[in-house]
Formats: sequence, structure tokens, C-alpha cells
Amino acid sequence: MKAVQVVGYGRNLELADVPAPEVTGPHDVIVRIGGAGVCRTDIHILEGQWAEKSGVTLPYTIGHENAGWVHAVGSAVTNVAEGDKVIVHPLITCGLCRACRAGDDVHCAQSAFPGIDTNGGYAEYLKTSARSVVRIDDSLEPSDVAALADAGLTAYHAAAKAARTLRPGDRCVVIGAGGLGHIGIQVLRAITAAELIVVDRNADAVKLAVSIGADHGVVASGGQVDEVLGLTGGDGAEVVLDFVGEGGATGDGVAMLRRAGDYHVVGYGENIDVPTIDIISTEINFIGNLVGSYTDLCELMVLAAQGRVRLHTSKYPLERFQDALDDLDAGRIRGRAILTP
Amino acid sequence: MKAVQVVGYGRNLELADVPAPEVTGPHDVIVRIGGAGVCRTDIHILEGQWAEKSGVTLPYTIGHENAGWVHAVGSAVTNVAEGDKVIVHPLITCGLCRACRAGDDVHCAQSAFPGIDTNGGYAEYLKTSARSVVRIDDSLEPSDVAALADAGLTAYHAAAKAARTLRPGDRCVVIGAGGLGHIGIQVLRAITAAELIVVDRNADAVKLAVSIGADHGVVASGGQVDEVLGLTGGDGAEVVLDFVGEGGATGDGVAMLRRAGDYHVVGYGENIDVPTIDIISTEINFIGNLVGSYTDLCELMVLAAQGRVRLHTSKYPLERFQDALDDLDAGRIRGRAILTP
Amino acid sequence: MKAVQVVGYGRNLELADVPAPEVTGPHDVIVRIGGAGVCRTDIHILEGQWAEKSGVTLPYTIGHENAGWVHAVGSAVTNVAEGDKVIVHPLITCGLCRACRAGDDVHCAQSAFPGIDTNGGYAEYLKTSARSVVRIDDSLEPSDVAALADAGLTAYHAAAKAARTLRPGDRCVVIGAGGLGHIGIQVLRAITAAELIVVDRNADAVKLAVSIGADHGVVASGGQVDEVLGLTGGDGAEVVLDFVGEGGATGDGVAMLRRAGDYHVVGYGENIDVPTIDIISTEINFIGNLVGSYTDLCELMVLAAQGRVRLHTSKYPLERFQDALDDLDAGRIRGRAILTP
Amino acid sequence: MKAVQVVGYGRNLELADVPAPEVTGPHDVIVRIGGAGVCRTDIHILEGQWAEKSGVTLPYTIGHENAGWVHAVGSAVTNVAEGDKVIVHPLITCGLCRACRAGDDVHCAQSAFPGIDTNGGYAEYLKTSARSVVRIDDSLEPSDVAALADAGLTAYHAAAKAARTLRPGDRCVVIGAGGLGHIGIQVLRAITAAELIVVDRNADAVKLAVSIGADHGVVASGGQVDEVLGLTGGDGAEVVLDFVGEGGATGDGVAMLRRAGDYHVVGYGENIDVPTIDIISTEINFIGNLVGSYTDLCELMVLAAQGRVRLHTSKYPLERFQDALDDLDAGRIRGRAILTP
Repeated sequence: MKAVQVVGYGRNLELADVPAPEVTGPHDVIVRIGGAGVCRTDIHILEGQWAEKSGVTLPYTIGHENAGWVHAVGSAVTNVAEGDKVIVHPLITCGLCRACRAGDDVHCAQSAFPGIDTNGGYAEYLKTSARSVVRIDDSLEPSDVAALADAGLTAYHAAAKAARTLRPGDRCVVIGAGGLGHIGIQVLRAITAAELIVVDRNADAVKLAVSIGADHGVVASGGQVDEVLGLTGGDGAEVVLDFVGEGGATGDGVAMLRRAGDYHVVGYGENIDVPTIDIISTEINFIGNLVGSYTDLCELMVLAAQGRVRLHTSKYPLERFQDALDDLDAGRIRGRAILTP
Repeated sequence: MKAVQVVGYGRNLELADVPAPEVTGPHDVIVRIGGAGVCRTDIHILEGQWAEKSGVTLPYTIGHENAGWVHAVGSAVTNVAEGDKVIVHPLITCGLCRACRAGDDVHCAQSAFPGIDTNGGYAEYLKTSARSVVRIDDSLEPSDVAALADAGLTAYHAAAKAARTLRPGDRCVVIGAGGLGHIGIQVLRAITAAELIVVDRNADAVKLAVSIGADHGVVASGGQVDEVLGLTGGDGAEVVLDFVGEGGATGDGVAMLRRAGDYHVVGYGENIDVPTIDIISTEINFIGNLVGSYTDLCELMVLAAQGRVRLHTSKYPLERFQDALDDLDAGRIRGRAILTP
Repeated sequence: MKAVQVVGYGRNLELADVPAPEVTGPHDVIVRIGGAGVCRTDIHILEGQWAEKSGVTLPYTIGHENAGWVHAVGSAVTNVAEGDKVIVHPLITCGLCRACRAGDDVHCAQSAFPGIDTNGGYAEYLKTSARSVVRIDDSLEPSDVAALADAGLTAYHAAAKAARTLRPGDRCVVIGAGGLGHIGIQVLRAITAAELIVVDRNADAVKLAVSIGADHGVVASGGQVDEVLGLTGGDGAEVVLDFVGEGGATGDGVAMLRRAGDYHVVGYGENIDVPTIDIISTEINFIGNLVGSYTDLCELMVLAAQGRVRLHTSKYPLERFQDALDDLDAGRIRGRAILTP
Repeated sequence: MKAVQVVGYGRNLELADVPAPEVTGPHDVIVRIGGAGVCRTDIHILEGQWAEKSGVTLPYTIGHENAGWVHAVGSAVTNVAEGDKVIVHPLITCGLCRACRAGDDVHCAQSAFPGIDTNGGYAEYLKTSARSVVRIDDSLEPSDVAALADAGLTAYHAAAKAARTLRPGDRCVVIGAGGLGHIGIQVLRAITAAELIVVDRNADAVKLAVSIGADHGVVASGGQVDEVLGLTGGDGAEVVLDFVGEGGATGDGVAMLRRAGDYHVVGYGENIDVPTIDIISTEINFIGNLVGSYTDLCELMVLAAQGRVRLHTSKYPLERFQDALDDLDAGRIRGRAILTP
């Protein structure tokens, strides 16, 4: 089958002809790819940023945001059957460790991550597990939802966790209205009545945020902290959801947070660097957020089927993978780039 | 009445004769002091560290850990009567703001703090509010429990919050087995079956910690992170309760924390300084902890009455306030110093 | 002032001229009534159903759903000032008992209930407490929101409690789309993405429910259990919110509930009568719901100001109280009847 | 191998020679039985009470409380290895349905129940699944802990759920100090400082309850409701844990419950039959409790290894199964009867 592979760091990806994956274990599921999201992480992989961390052997097939149709299943698979339309959770988890048994499979003691440490979905077929496939509604197309498998799932996870404490009258600041923030806003709008204040440097992104449900948009150009404080009667917001995590976002975000508030860390880059005396005297919390669980992905697919979460995509045939990466790198993609068969 | 007052920063406290406080408002409660805790914060006040923050006008009476007997009450006071034995919550709160109405009175929008920003309890009488007095069990003496009013209450608040997520088999690291840690360990032992690992630089403190319920004691002398990791099968602990917050404690503590773990910040001094990528990739949380609420103080007094929480005290007559402060400053106090009438 | 009073059980209400209430205690608030809801409970009071329970002395002024403007305040009132537009929480609570201190003021150990056990709001002025008044948004009129003070608040409380466990993909059955159900549906739609299935005997009420956000409407005419099971893939719903509680509603509702589901009891009349073996083998819960807390009322007023919760009202001048009661009794009111000055 | 089988309802069990179970699926685990608990449910099975519900084909091997050593494992089993000492969760669950993925495996959509609907553990070997075996501490013997697999696990599940809301100063009534209650009390004592009030008709059971940690014992002989109300200042208890559920226990229990309290249903027999008006006016909850999850069993085994939960057992060689059942039926067993190889 065709597969787009990492053949060396600092080099371009290459299209190769490789054997299609086959069922070998009882829980294996082979997915015929309908859409594979092109993610900034893919560019970081090519730059070698993940080489040591993943320990992957080259060459291998990249791509960790996948959706498609079930092509074949192992002997113990009972939750999907050939032909089912599915989105693929980014992790393959063991199902037997303490975390998996508690429903917290993202902290599985021995997970694999196709597209990062084993073969991924820039290809015709992907091998994953029964524990990683979620059937999607008839109304959804794999190429439309593929990018929800990782970026969208992370945004959902953080927004849903934040929403658990948000009551009517509370304010939630969303820092960053890009790929993840865009999803997070839609999720918050669907499951909370909190007032949403979106902060981004890009005026167009702010405008879009307001059009999909934000109550206030703030263009970050120096006065964003004061502007948010003004919108919250000087108190700050009960929750800050930081999808940026770099370029000074965390300092700003902490300054926008109310006493006893929750600061959700999602984006990354800089350090959280806050005096302990400030943490205790205002009694604020910093909440880490990784990608969502299998259950989170099921819930996100419900919101997608209900039309409450929508993603803008630009589609490219698999062979045009280089164009997609180039467009992403050059900032020419609105929404997410998707490779299709 | 006799009162010990701050007369200037960088100067010693002075014993003065001042008018006794009187009931003027409907919720006022005058407490005849039975014990007033001598706290390191009192030394910091004298050094001027709180001068600007509190904005207090000198001279004023110091002392924020108080217990005694109700001497007089305002017209609207229904929860205590003259003669009742009480401990005094350190804050006077309004009861009408959003935080107060939610039971989260520590974040009251307009609280006062006797001993810090108004007259405190190094005196014969203290003026506080009906919202700040908790009746204590007949078996308890004001001078024995006074120091639970602030230091103990902070430890209780953090330990009780941490315990909500601790299940049998979980590990909880307690950093610092001094005044607060000592209470925290007793609280955790009373309300959780989690494995308690106590870390302190002082071998005697560690020994004491084990004698009151810790499962493991670790003397911090360089190898404490490895030792804790060894005790947790290499994974780290589900919860770290940091009563120190300085001298490198936070770096150590984060290294002792398991994936998805909670780091409770209680002690303060240095910064929490952690890369956002570490926070999100391990999905850890930093939880701020201020002093406990009125309800927390009620619960702590139950544990004290049950004998589940005990405090070692050294008592001094009010007039010997300077000896108490000197002994505290010189590290000669085991447990807490208490001024008595 | 004018006041409409209960002068005897089994007799009509009578308009009287009584002294206007005055501030006597530090927390007193006198409200000039802008709207007083006419509630079925008022009819029950006249029938004598509450005579023994309330122990009220006749004559007294009826009316427990009130909103208006602050007319005068006691010396310790800091949260409202003369002229403020307010809605009145139905209970006057002490603020000092264990329940009040935990924010659970509905379970206050010594509350009063104006309109039930002391003078209420079918009058020009009402005496209440600083702890019972919630300022409302400029955009809201007292006569439009008065009925949210009790009926709406009960619905909000139950819906908000239920929503805490509802995730996208979960199903929530609402039994009864009348006064309370109508508000409950709007609240659920505002704060959850759960699938809402509304069941009512009245086809018009079902139609209205769907128009304000229900996903499915079921007219109860014998096949309602099967219809709901069909809509939930045979499994039943994760949550049932029962605003009826009589006429067989609870039997139906339990049959519509999924394993591990929550049955929220709000309406009342018949018994919950279920074999313990069924409760344990399906591990279902029955959750009681009383009127909401002060904090709940604040949150509901936010939803009202946002336009997310709307109430249809029919207004009558105070003097036409008998017409309002007659129309209510005869089923001629759509939404709620409100007496206005 | 030897196995004790149900050969007909209304007939005695019979010892048979049957083929030993073998690994056929990837997740199969064969356990060499070290102890099998003899439970009152086994008597009910023989009486035919479960015939229709389980649909099991006779003859089959009875016994659903099992512990022993891993004898053989399927190809996909990674959590245990041959020779491991294990306790066996009573259910075999699928691991792929919504409930299993959320960690709530007890509500698995397609579970099996060895000893009830397929071959159980009154035998030399038992076939179960990797998802059902929990490794136990070296210090524990299978024949000592076997009865914790079902009866103990149910008690743990209910007690741990109840403990989540219990704070110091709260009161918890435990109705029934027999097999389950006995474990429940030890669990509550280990993880809460709540005041434990134990009610039982049997004075010896009450005495034992006090000896293992109950604060108050009440012998039920007519005045138990008043006695409990007296012990709770007339208010009732925050939590009632009902391990009986028949013979009037539920009526008593509800009368012992405080406003806003939780009534945990564990034992069964009679109906919960309570007016909805009482449920809403006091805002009480009825909480169903089934057997615990896999995670619950792991936690209970921690408490057992710590010595915090202990079970009294009477052991019988497998061949003397009839004596064990006769002794149980005649009330001659203190604690639990266990069959050993």
C-alpha cells in the first residue's frame, strides 16, 4: 500500500510502497483511512524534536489523527465490525493496568502512539486496537472529523473538565482561538452557560470566536489583561483555559484569574513560574491537560454529530502531503489540513 | 485591659493598658482570651513584612490564633452565649458576598483579620464576630487548641482537600513535619488509609511523624527524591502535600509526583517554576491552599475532641510574650508557644 | 398598606388595610412589591392543607414568590441599597447554623417562610432579610421574574444538580412540561448537551417543550415507557427528572431509567415504592430536590438576564387577586399568574 | 478434576469428576482454587431462586467467591503470570462497552458471573479472565480472603461511596453488623473519622462491631429509632448504610436519617416505600449499591494487606461442602465458611 514515511530527520517525508498491516493479535483492528489530519507535531517530528522521546526506528509512517472504515478485526473484537465508520483514538492502551481499569486510559502504563512511535495514518491502512476505535454517526465523514482525533480531543478534554466547575454567572477566559481554542469554545458553548471571553493576537480569530459563541472577544495587543479585568468587574475570571502556553500567555493568564480560580494548562512552550505565596494567598490552581480519554472521544463525536462542534478543513489527496505540510508551515491553512485517499 | 502591641516596625512588642473592646454591632462577640498562639508570622509582622499589605495603623494589638470564653455578644448573635468555650476563626467575614454564601468564606470580599489588620488576641479580650466563633468540646482547653485556629486550620484544610482523592493503595508525600505538617499527618491518618511518606531535613521530626501515623519517614539529605521514588515503585506519589515551599522543596516535590498527581502548595517562599510541557505531558495539577473555612474549623475541633489531632504546646503568661518570641526565633519551641492570661 | 390575607380556611382571601412592615432588626430589608406569583400552593393554603404544618396565626398575608424594589434596609445590610431591583428568595435563613455556613441554606435550622408561616407578598410591601434578596439585571422586570422565586428556583435546583452528571450522549427524561418542567427544560438546554426527552399528557405542553429545546417529545397516553425505551436503544435514560410525582409518574419513570441512573424526585403526591432488590441490582439512585439555595437563585437570575430562561406570565392588579386564583384553579392560566401593584 | 455441582433445584449439590478448564481465549486465566466462599446466595441457587434469572444449564459448578493461584494464562494476558496469588472478581467483563471504558465495569453490557451463570469455584480449577484477577499481597492467604471477593467487595463499595461525603462530626448509621456490615464498619473506620452507630438485633454482633471500631452500638429491640435520634441530638444521621433491607429495616433507617442525608441500600428483601413529599421536603437520597468494581477490589485488598480489614473464617475441605452449607443454614458459622482444596 501507499504510505508517507519519515526517512530521516531534517529531510522531507517520502511516499513509499509498503506492505499493508495485517491482523496478528486478538484485539487488532485494521482501519482503511478516510482522512488523516496534518498537525504541527508532524513538522516537529521531521525536525527531530521527538526522535529521542519516541525512540522510533526509521523509516516509519507518520500521522496520528485518523478516521476511516474498519477493514479487518482480530478474534476478540466485539465493539466494531468490518465496514464500520470510525474515528481512531491516538493511543493504543493495554486495558489491564490501574489507569486503564479506572477509565483513565490516557495514563496507561504501556501505551503505543501510532504516527509517533509506531506506524501511523498517512497511508491507505492503519493498524490499531479495538480499544481505540469509536464508531461515528452516519452523518459524519471520516475526512471531516479526523482532526478531532487528537487536537480536537485535547480541546474537548480540557473544556469539559473546566466546565464541571463553571456555573451561570462565572466567566471563562479562553486564551488562543486557533485550532484547539476554536473547538474548546464550541464545546464550552454546548455544555455551559458561563460567559466566554476569548483572547487572541489575531483579530480574525477573535471575530470567528465571537461568531461561534464567545460572549466577548479581546484582541491581545498589550492591554488584554486590563481589558479582561474590566469585563469581569475587576475580579478576574473563575477559569482560564490557556491553549497557547508561550510568548507570555501564562503571565497574562494568571493575572486574569480570580481568587480560587482554575488555570487550565493546555498549550505549552514556556514555564509556569509563579511565587508560591501568590498561589496560596489567592488559592488558585494549575490544572494540567493531556489528550482526552476514549470516553472523551465518544462524547466529542456526539457533539460533532449534533452539529454543536464543527471543524473547517482543507483536503489534499495523500500524494500531495508535501503541499499540505508546506501550506501549514506557511500559515496558509484555515482550520485543519486533511489527507484523503 | 492588658494588651501586647506593635508600636513600630523593627522594634519589640510592648505591653500596654488599653480599653477593653465592647459590643457595638449586632454580630459582635467579645472573647475573654484563654490562649493566644505565638506564630512565626508575628515575627514577620514586627520585621515590617506585612506593613504595606495589611495597612494597619500603629499601635495595635497583635495575635491571630485565639481561643477562650465568650464574654459578651451583640443583639443578633444566636450561635453562642456568654460563658461558651470557643476557638476563634482568624477571619471576620461578611456573610453576604458570593463567596460567603457558597460556604467559601475564606474568599470573602470584605474580610478583616484580627492580629494582622485590626486588634488581635495578645490581650485579655478580643473582639470578633458571631461568624468566627466555634464552640469547642468540654474536654478541650482554649490554651491547648488556640494554635489550631490558624496553623492547624491551614494544615487541616489542605489535608482534607487532598484526602478527597486518596484511595487505599495511593501514596501521599508530606514535605515538612513541623508545625503544620505534624497536624496534616494526624488529619490524613484519621480520614484516609493512603500510605503516608513524610520527608523532612530534621531526623527528630521524621521520627515523630512516624510515631503519629506516617508509614515511612525520609530524612532529606540529598537522596530524598530517589528514596521516595523507591518507596513508590518508581512511579511517584498520587499526592504531594508541600508544607515547606522553599529551599528547593518544590523541585523535589514535583519530582516525587506521579502522572496525574496533585501537588498541594501550602508552605511558601520560592516559585513554582515548571515547564508547561511537563505539566501537560504528565497531566499534573498544582493546588493552592489558604487557611480553612469556618466549616473546616468545626471539623478540626471534632478531630481534636476525639483525640485524633493533638498539639504539643509550651505555655507562657501573657506578660512573658518576649520570652515566647525569643524562644520561637531561637528554635527552642517544640510544637507551639501559647500565651495564657 | 393594602394586603391580601388569609382570614380563615375554606374561605376566600380578603383585601385588608394593614400597617406596612418596618425595619426592626439589623438585617431587615423591606421590599416594595413589583410582582407576586400566584401559586397552586396558595390554593392549598386556603384549603387548610398547610394549617398545622406552618402553625401560622390568622389573619396573615399570603404570597411566597416575590420581586420588587428595596424600600428600606437595616443597619447591617451591605449587599443591597434602597432602590435596588431584587427578587426575593422564599426563605429567611439564619446564616449561622451548620447548613447556612456550608452554603446549604435551604436546610437552615431555623428558617422562616414568608407567605406560608409569616406575612408574604400579596401586598404593597414585604419584610424579608438581607440574606434573601438577589439584585437582578437592569433588563429584568420584577413582575416578569417573580414566579422564578420559588417554582422556577425549584426547577433550576433540580436541573442544575442533574446536569452535573450529564455528559454528551446521555439522555435525560423530563416528566412534566408544565410550570416547573418548562423552566427545567430551558435550564438543561443552557448547561448541558444531553438529549432531552420530554413526557407529558398534554400534547400542547409537549409541543412547547420541543420548541424551547427538548430533542424529543412524548405524549403520555399509555405507551410512554416503551416510547422512551425505544428512543434510548432499549437501555433507558441516564437521568429522569420527575416534575410530576403522582398519577403513576414514578412507576413510569423508574421503568425509563437506565442501570446506574439517577431519578430526581421534584413533584410529589404518590409514594416511591420500589423493591430494594431492583434498586441494588440496577444500582439506581433516588435524589430528593427541594427549592434551590440563594446561590441557585443568583445563577437562575443570570440565565434569565441572558434570555436563556423565559417565563410566560398573565398579570393582574393586586385587587383582582380572586380572578387570578379562579383562573389558576380553572386551568385558564398559561405560564404563571402574577399580581402587580 | 473434582467439582461440586448443582444437579437439580431442590436437590443437594453433588461432587463430580469433570474435565479441568483450559485456556481457549486470549484473555483466559485458569486459577487453581485456594479458597471458595460459601455464601447464602448458594443456598438460594439450590432453592431455584436464580434459575430463571441466570438461565444456567445444569449441571454446573457453583461458587462465586474465589481466590487462589494462577495456573495458566491466555496469549494476551499481561497483568498476571503463572504462580501469582490472586483473588477473583466475581464478574467477567468485556472491557469494551461504555461502562467498562469508564471504569464502571460492574455495569458491563455483556458480563458473565462464574458460579451463577457459568462454572464457578467449588472445584480445583476455575476459568476466569485477565480482567477479573487481582494480585494479592504475599502476606495474604487465598483461603483467608476468598470471601472478600463478593460479600466483602459489596460492603467495601457501599462504605467507600458513603465515605466520600462523610466529614468529621458527621454520623453514619450502619444497619446490620453481620457478614457485610462487619466489613463495612472496618472500611469506614479506616477511611473516615465519622461517628459510627451500629444497629443490629443481635447483641453479640453489636458487641463485636464496637470492638472493631464502631463508636456506638444499638441493639434493635423496638427503641432503636429513638436511640439513634438521641445519639444524634435529635437530628438523625448524615448517612445510613443499610445492610439488611428487610424486616422493617428500611422504615427504621429512613426515620434515622437527617435532612439532606443519604440512605445507602445494600441489603434487600422489602420495598423502599416512602412518600415523595417526604423525600422532597427533607431532600434525602436513596443510593443503590451493587458489588464493587475491579478497582474497588484492588483497594479492598490493600486494606486487607494493611490489616485494616479482617475476616473470621471457618474452613472445610472441598469434599465437606455439605457440612459447610448445613452449618451456614443452621446459623452455626461465625464469619464466613470457606472450602479449601
